[in-house]
Amino acid sequence: MANMISDDLRGLFYEREVDSPVAKVVRALSGHGAVSTSQIARSTGLARSTVSTILADLKRSSLVVEVEVETRTTGSAGRPALAHSLNPEAGTCIGILLGLGEIRIILADVAHSVLADVTLPLESHYGPEKATRVLRHAIDNLYKEHSLPYSGLLGVGVAVSGPLAPSGKVMRASMLPGWAGVDLRGIFEPALEKPIFADNESNCAALAEMMWGAATGADNFVLFKLDSGVGGAIVAGGKVLSGAAGAAGEFGHMLVDQHGPLCRCGNRGCLELYCSATTLEAEARRLLGRPAPVADIIDMASRGDVGFQRLIADAGDVAGRALAVIGSVVNAPLFVISGALATAGDLLLSPLRMSYEKHALIKRTDLAQGEFPSFVPGRFLSNDNCMGAVGLVLRHSGRLT
Amino acid sequence: MANMISDDLRGLFYEREVDSPVAKVVRALSGHGAVSTSQIARSTGLARSTVSTILADLKRSSLVVEVEVETRTTGSAGRPALAHSLNPEAGTCIGILLGLGEIRIILADVAHSVLADVTLPLESHYGPEKATRVLRHAIDNLYKEHSLPYSGLLGVGVAVSGPLAPSGKVMRASMLPGWAGVDLRGIFEPALEKPIFADNESNCAALAEMMWGAATGADNFVLFKLDSGVGGAIVAGGKVLSGAAGAAGEFGHMLVDQHGPLCRCGNRGCLELYCSATTLEAEARRLLGRPAPVADIIDMASRGDVGFQRLIADAGDVAGRALAVIGSVVNAPLFVISGALATAGDLLLSPLRMSYEKHALIKRTDLAQGEFPSFVPGRFLSNDNCMGAVGLVLRHSGRLT
Repeated sequence: MANMISDDLRGLFYEREVDSPVAKVVRALSGHGAVSTSQIARSTGLARSTVSTILADLKRSSLVVEVEVETRTTGSAGRPALAHSLNPEAGTCIGILLGLGEIRIILADVAHSVLADVTLPLESHYGPEKATRVLRHAIDNLYKEHSLPYSGLLGVGVAVSGPLAPSGKVMRASMLPGWAGVDLRGIFEPALEKPIFADNESNCAALAEMMWGAATGADNFVLFKLDSGVGGAIVAGGKVLSGAAGAAGEFGHMLVDQHGPLCRCGNRGCLELYCSATTLEAEARRLLGRPAPVADIIDMASRGDVGFQRLIADAGDVAGRALAVIGSVVNAPLFVISGALATAGDLLLSPLRMSYEKHALIKRTDLAQGEFPSFVPGRFLSNDNCMGAVGLVLRHSGRLT
Repeated sequence: MANMISDDLRGLFYEREVDSPVAKVVRALSGHGAVSTSQIARSTGLARSTVSTILADLKRSSLVVEVEVETRTTGSAGRPALAHSLNPEAGTCIGILLGLGEIRIILADVAHSVLADVTLPLESHYGPEKATRVLRHAIDNLYKEHSLPYSGLLGVGVAVSGPLAPSGKVMRASMLPGWAGVDLRGIFEPALEKPIFADNESNCAALAEMMWGAATGADNFVLFKLDSGVGGAIVAGGKVLSGAAGAAGEFGHMLVDQHGPLCRCGNRGCLELYCSATTLEAEARRLLGRPAPVADIIDMASRGDVGFQRLIADAGDVAGRALAVIGSVVNAPLFVISGALATAGDLLLSPLRMSYEKHALIKRTDLAQGEFPSFVPGRFLSNDNCMGAVGLVLRHSGRLT
């Protein structure tokens, strides 16, 4: 049964040439999670009655199920509303993060529920061959453990820690040593025997927040990620900007001080040298005389340590200044702050907001109430890249399509 | 005759709801100048045979004419190729620049040939009422002088020196004193009795370069304008990014030095304090003891004055650093350098390129040959904003549509 459904779904899902109404509805469902009939009509441009008929058909063939969602925007005090979602049993996706010294794998159903989430520790210089071998083995095992058919796997999304060229090749500025120039589809598609989608990890993170997270419904926003590195993504008109060499949104390498310390990218004084988790950890280690992971720094600051509060606030201050520059360039209405540092909440966000407001071109007083940009923490602070890789498959997007 | 044609054209041009093949072809012609049948087929998605039939019909009714264009891309040594263009006699457009202390008006035909170009000097604090009165009078006179029917005027494009909110209201950060909050369509449409299109002047400049200038055929580029102020625009996927408050591309207010001099925008150390024509003129005046317009500075530098060469080179250096930051944010493949300073040519562009290359994240060696971004001077250095305002009408775009 599960197999038959997947075959049907795969047909609708991959028939990209065919712009049939039913394919449009399936894509609207896979790209947005639970949605109402009106929302599907709006996003596909189809008549409401057409959408209703198609949904009824899809329900009869078990490809679509009804789900209850909380109504948040209406004033009717959270009365649950009916929405539609792809049948979770209709297929599965894999999202992968190629990280520094590890590979993370998320197995999710087409309704983006996480069925498994594993991290494979590897040596820091693992190469493409090793990665391919380890991945195929781990994914096979996951499907066996969960008694799921591999044939139900619709595609594999890959998030990469670094810019990805439009050709699908990893760029030198990537954090992965030894992967520069590697063609991701070329190595993974033969080994995994599934369609491969790939993008930069921050672009994936933006996709996850846009599809199911802090930016749901937002067509224009900036994702700003303060993690071991600093990066981000720009979403304009519902699409993640990729840039000529796949390097749009590389906020970590914005120049802060041309005479500053040397950066791993080959320049001096890049933003990430002033506000990444790595930098905060180095400072904390110097003070404490022992390693202090960023989670501990945030924990100590939350309990009242003024030194670590200052460390986080200073990172927020420099980040806010950079966001003001980004604001002068792209003038975003919403900033989703992501990465490990975002778990510090207002310890980071308050100084960040103040700094943005001080340095931005468009001040709060220039705008009507509610028009000043919002700064919100991301929803997927620990796995946005992998969830976004799942999103690449469901949205059928990414650099390699 | 001219009147009848305009009526036909107006019909096709403004029937935005009707996505008829013929309306699509007319819009492809008005938005691109002279184009071949294949180019129209590509940009409209219509079959080549359909396009040919439509073009034949349009030619019979004198709405479209054949023109010869030089073939640049083929190897056939400049053999002229046949292309199609709207009949210049089919209608006219007005492009206006609301500048500081003056209003400039360009009258162009639908094939974007400039029929008249006048500048009306006004007091520096002219307001919306004065502007409306002066404009109606001047435009009426232009049509009389050129014996053109006002009924043939398809629309009026307005370029504004400052950000324009999505609502069509001029923002505080505009260079026009007393215009903050003014609704441009609200004041101009009743007075001119024509459809009004409007956008920020740099966005207009980008449109002119994209339609007929240095960025013809480019879907992704950054326009960077070094003029009395510093500004610009980002074009992604063939569209000018507007930003939440219409303030995308306000590169002049990127932070260079948070302890720098106060800027007219209310911040400190903004980019335009380091590389605008105004800044260079102030420095030259200090040295020479008399006013020196930027054209004179460039002229003296071209004749070998090492001091003024240095002045221009330093502006190029700081501009290149800013472009590297913009590159880390949007990763553009093409930078069109515009404004009065761009007339300095390589005196500006060489140090600018070197500085970009030094500070950019993606180095030349990271890319295949030909993939490193290009830096080219704009084609419309003296009137790109007004030409772009004409483009707003022909493209039927801009903030107010």
